[in-house]
Amino acid sequence: MNSFGQLFHISLFGESHGDGIGVVIDGCPAGVSLKREEFTKDLRKRKPKKKGGTPRMEEDSPMIISGILDQRTTGAPIAIFFANKNIRPLDYLPFQMLPRPGHVDFVGLHKHGGFHDSRGGGHFSGRLALALVTAGVIAKKLIAPAEINANILEIGGSRDFDGIIDKAIKENDSLGGIVECSIKGLPVGLGEPFFDSAESLISHMVFAIPGIKGIEFGSGFACSRMRGSECNDVIINKRGKTRTNHTGGINGGITNGNEVIFRVAVRPTPSIVKKQETVNLQTGQRERMSIKGRHDTCFAMRMPVIVEAAAAIVFVDLLLRAQIIPRIWGGKI
Amino acid sequence: MNSFGQLFHISLFGESHGDGIGVVIDGCPAGVSLKREEFTKDLRKRKPKKKGGTPRMEEDSPMIISGILDQRTTGAPIAIFFANKNIRPLDYLPFQMLPRPGHVDFVGLHKHGGFHDSRGGGHFSGRLALALVTAGVIAKKLIAPAEINANILEIGGSRDFDGIIDKAIKENDSLGGIVECSIKGLPVGLGEPFFDSAESLISHMVFAIPGIKGIEFGSGFACSRMRGSECNDVIINKRGKTRTNHTGGINGGITNGNEVIFRVAVRPTPSIVKKQETVNLQTGQRERMSIKGRHDTCFAMRMPVIVEAAAAIVFVDLLLRAQIIPRIWGGKI
Amino acid sequence: MNSFGQLFHISLFGESHGDGIGVVIDGCPAGVSLKREEFTKDLRKRKPKKKGGTPRMEEDSPMIISGILDQRTTGAPIAIFFANKNIRPLDYLPFQMLPRPGHVDFVGLHKHGGFHDSRGGGHFSGRLALALVTAGVIAKKLIAPAEINANILEIGGSRDFDGIIDKAIKENDSLGGIVECSIKGLPVGLGEPFFDSAESLISHMVFAIPGIKGIEFGSGFACSRMRGSECNDVIINKRGKTRTNHTGGINGGITNGNEVIFRVAVRPTPSIVKKQETVNLQTGQRERMSIKGRHDTCFAMRMPVIVEAAAAIVFVDLLLRAQIIPRIWGGKI
Amino acid sequence: MNSFGQLFHISLFGESHGDGIGVVIDGCPAGVSLKREEFTKDLRKRKPKKKGGTPRMEEDSPMIISGILDQRTTGAPIAIFFANKNIRPLDYLPFQMLPRPGHVDFVGLHKHGGFHDSRGGGHFSGRLALALVTAGVIAKKLIAPAEINANILEIGGSRDFDGIIDKAIKENDSLGGIVECSIKGLPVGLGEPFFDSAESLISHMVFAIPGIKGIEFGSGFACSRMRGSECNDVIINKRGKTRTNHTGGINGGITNGNEVIFRVAVRPTPSIVKKQETVNLQTGQRERMSIKGRHDTCFAMRMPVIVEAAAAIVFVDLLLRAQIIPRIWGGKI
Repeated sequence: MNSFGQLFHISLFGESHGDGIGVVIDGCPAGVSLKREEFTKDLRKRKPKKKGGTPRMEEDSPMIISGILDQRTTGAPIAIFFANKNIRPLDYLPFQMLPRPGHVDFVGLHKHGGFHDSRGGGHFSGRLALALVTAGVIAKKLIAPAEINANILEIGGSRDFDGIIDKAIKENDSLGGIVECSIKGLPVGLGEPFFDSAESLISHMVFAIPGIKGIEFGSGFACSRMRGSECNDVIINKRGKTRTNHTGGINGGITNGNEVIFRVAVRPTPSIVKKQETVNLQTGQRERMSIKGRHDTCFAMRMPVIVEAAAAIVFVDLLLRAQIIPRIWGGKI
Repeated sequence: MNSFGQLFHISLFGESHGDGIGVVIDGCPAGVSLKREEFTKDLRKRKPKKKGGTPRMEEDSPMIISGILDQRTTGAPIAIFFANKNIRPLDYLPFQMLPRPGHVDFVGLHKHGGFHDSRGGGHFSGRLALALVTAGVIAKKLIAPAEINANILEIGGSRDFDGIIDKAIKENDSLGGIVECSIKGLPVGLGEPFFDSAESLISHMVFAIPGIKGIEFGSGFACSRMRGSECNDVIINKRGKTRTNHTGGINGGITNGNEVIFRVAVRPTPSIVKKQETVNLQTGQRERMSIKGRHDTCFAMRMPVIVEAAAAIVFVDLLLRAQIIPRIWGGKI
Repeated sequence: MNSFGQLFHISLFGESHGDGIGVVIDGCPAGVSLKREEFTKDLRKRKPKKKGGTPRMEEDSPMIISGILDQRTTGAPIAIFFANKNIRPLDYLPFQMLPRPGHVDFVGLHKHGGFHDSRGGGHFSGRLALALVTAGVIAKKLIAPAEINANILEIGGSRDFDGIIDKAIKENDSLGGIVECSIKGLPVGLGEPFFDSAESLISHMVFAIPGIKGIEFGSGFACSRMRGSECNDVIINKRGKTRTNHTGGINGGITNGNEVIFRVAVRPTPSIVKKQETVNLQTGQRERMSIKGRHDTCFAMRMPVIVEAAAAIVFVDLLLRAQIIPRIWGGKI
Repeated sequence: MNSFGQLFHISLFGESHGDGIGVVIDGCPAGVSLKREEFTKDLRKRKPKKKGGTPRMEEDSPMIISGILDQRTTGAPIAIFFANKNIRPLDYLPFQMLPRPGHVDFVGLHKHGGFHDSRGGGHFSGRLALALVTAGVIAKKLIAPAEINANILEIGGSRDFDGIIDKAIKENDSLGGIVECSIKGLPVGLGEPFFDSAESLISHMVFAIPGIKGIEFGSGFACSRMRGSECNDVIINKRGKTRTNHTGGINGGITNGNEVIFRVAVRPTPSIVKKQETVNLQTGQRERMSIKGRHDTCFAMRMPVIVEAAAAIVFVDLLLRAQIIPRIWGGKI
């Protein structure tokens, strides 16, 4: 279902080329100050980049519909809506019969028996990540003084982001990348031993972001090649500080008070101008297609703020469960 | 919380050195034939390996308490219990003040305010995976004709498993590894676009297994270094078969009818005989410790059947939601 | 939390005197035909009655924001919004310090630490029932051929509705009533033995409607005064038809194939012009107050269509779980 | 599904004439002192009464399997099991073809396609209420200083319990009754405006108890016949104390700090010796049957402690959500 979270519960709705998209946030403590301008910074970070970004420009102006009065949360569900203004639904008609490789066209068709809204991916669209970022702005306030920070580690395997993107644009191709996220200042004890381990919840949320294909915590896959004596993080003081952080700040599913670190693998944008083969679902014949539309050369470039939002939402929920975030904010912020 | 699944709902309970451990499985269709012997094969696969396995031998004999009558499921919750017989709770007393590096000792203490059952990890123990395997046996029957298969790809970075384990034993150290899991025969359309994407649910479940530090689907992290034109899986027939499978059988969170493939990174066993440093929580002094106890040199060796169970449980839930598994089995198996 | 349902999941948002109210419906099968006009009939039934209805007139015009394309559901979440147009938020300022007897003023203040939106009850308002009715319109289509029908049995203890309402208006007072709801055509077997018994789910949903103070199934409270030999419903054919229906079509929490019948008690509208005592929360002094605002003399008159919606939503969920409603509607309606 | 509760989550399993029944309680704070003897008092209250009680005597001796160490909760799931010792599964064979009127025989058969465990009602049995009472013992400790108290108001419409039961026994018939439950000492503000209103959660839980057919809060059905001016509870001090309590301590779904009061209607035991008609499902012929088995003349007599448990479980959950019960008990009890 399109909702997530036990005590800080978010639901998404909307389509890429319909009226708009939105989010309902239930369980936010009452009394949190929240001005419309506070969304601006993160929403701007998600906007297409100058180099290689999609030419589709949306205003991304949040309409706060409910749950906020006199610039403070009231304790009621917060609904925020973004109208779609720059839509071109007809661009996507061909893909109903000519499914784009690497895209949701084929699965959308089957999952919903042909009733799927396939315009720009419909509800599957990366545009829905806008709703995550919006919820993330609120979540980041709530997890303070913990701080969250995501950065691009590499694009197409390279640290020279602009250079490699330039090359891909010229070759009508697209690129992926790796994003690292760290959260500092979390208390010891968040998460549960099994199904609600901190890693379970973070990965659940992160794989909700379109285009993520892998996640690793701390040293992750490299751990599998270490000896125990290398991989074990030695505790050096009573507060649990460790000398190394191979475990990424999580033991047995529970935060250990050190920095939580994880990295995600972002696949290259599937829509490319370069010619690709596919099958015409009507004729069964193979055809070659070039996807014009309006797409990012590398959506990993826009990913850090989305990954931050995902992590922040998870930790609000865990901090509420641990009763560290109060149910009534008390004018603290 | 210690439960997972929407329509096929499992709950775990128990401790490593208490009376025993168990699982309650709610939502299993009625009429599935289930004999006690059917658990034997998978439970045996989880047993410690001869080389480098923990010397703790448990019978692991399942007691079916409820939900099965005349060797068929009745539709009521299935409860299965495993008594602990070979326990040594006193072995673990020292670790309350001397937290083992890489272990749950420190977080357990803080999370539960000192009331934690720390004997052998208590409820955090890898022994709880026995309950997952048990639920997995039922889940595997239900997903048929889909088939699930997990294998060890490497141990300590090597394909020579026995050699590298021998070496680690001699050096009083431990090893991790990588396990790959594939599921063949799933229909198109399982999973939801956002929070219940197939990747979200699989990773949520897989990170519930103690010791997993990373997961990647299809080509995973390698995708992030590919061009779109390499990474896109070209569809070659009307049923959606693709020429490559970089996406691991999942697009936009939805199964696409190709093989679902994922790999997980398993960390080395944290308990090692080799001396390590830690902090005495009472004195604040650093001490060196050697962990005797009874532990696997490499618990990744026992992981494949657990990972299979995790994946099977997720897909039962998704197949029930998609109404492909019937609520009344009808004597089919 | 403000959401309900396992497979047919609805979330509410909005306030009585804010921008508007809305509902997100997740899990509706794809392919259900749904025209904007189809909402009209039920929305009109909820409108204030001529006699004794609140003078606040709202257009109650549904804006379909997502999840419907070309007049069919797409399988994505359906979001529907109603703008508030006829608002008077300032009417409610006095009640922050002078809590209306029988009203949410006092609890709202405490629950949300003074950050509560108290304008017309804010998110607590009966206006939110509009969202339930909207979801109910879709739910009623899905449960077909089962049919649902709710009626007023009595108002203020009388069958002469108009007469007693006239009298109450003249005396500046308000009235309650009893509403009966029946659902015909449901299959045997819906509901679960314990926590998801049909009665549990119906009552959970019905008590979400503001102003309900009691529910009874079948002969309900009268059952408690019957002998077993009177109360037992004798089965008269193989399909389970019973001669009487004291149990209200539900045994052991499970529908038995007979008509499901329940009655709910609706309290009188708490807001009355007649003078009442209350306490000034600032001074601690008792004061007398007369509530002018805009209110129904008897909101039970508007309740049947809301109760129908509540029941329909519950049974869609149970029919989906029982796999009787298909996940893809297939153009059936 | 057979589980309930968001933060204090209970799951039931077991059958009346199988190996036994049990409960898993997840989310209980760590550090609560809990001795085996503490269960005795409430378990004894649920035992069959001397007059008219079933002759089936079970030891009802709780086996604490997990989650408790050194007589304190550890924070891990608490599993408690009761072995069935006095079983007679063969007594129930006839009812597979000859469904008892008012019983679950017919619905059980259909719901689970004939695979149902029908022995003594199987998982539907009132014996499962033992598990609720067990969870209730823990819940009552947690809600302190709030106190909960349920009593029988009437049996078979009479206050002369023993007299009317004597008469029913002689006439081979059975009786129902009304039970009233009050909870004193709850804070203002528990519950949510819509789907998680206090009434919604209490009624959800109470209707999980086999044999309940109605519930009303405060003056309940009588409210529907009052004027607003009578029904409104006048607030008489700043802490929200009201002069009357027609609303049963709940406004708009939220506790208002006054006593929470509700009444439930319990139907007569369906199993009676007196001859009744039913249909033979094999032949389709009507037959007359007399039910010998072992049953209570009036199970309402055993109901108060079960209703108390149901209410206590709900309020633990709400007090945890409101952060009034701490996640770590801190040795307070």
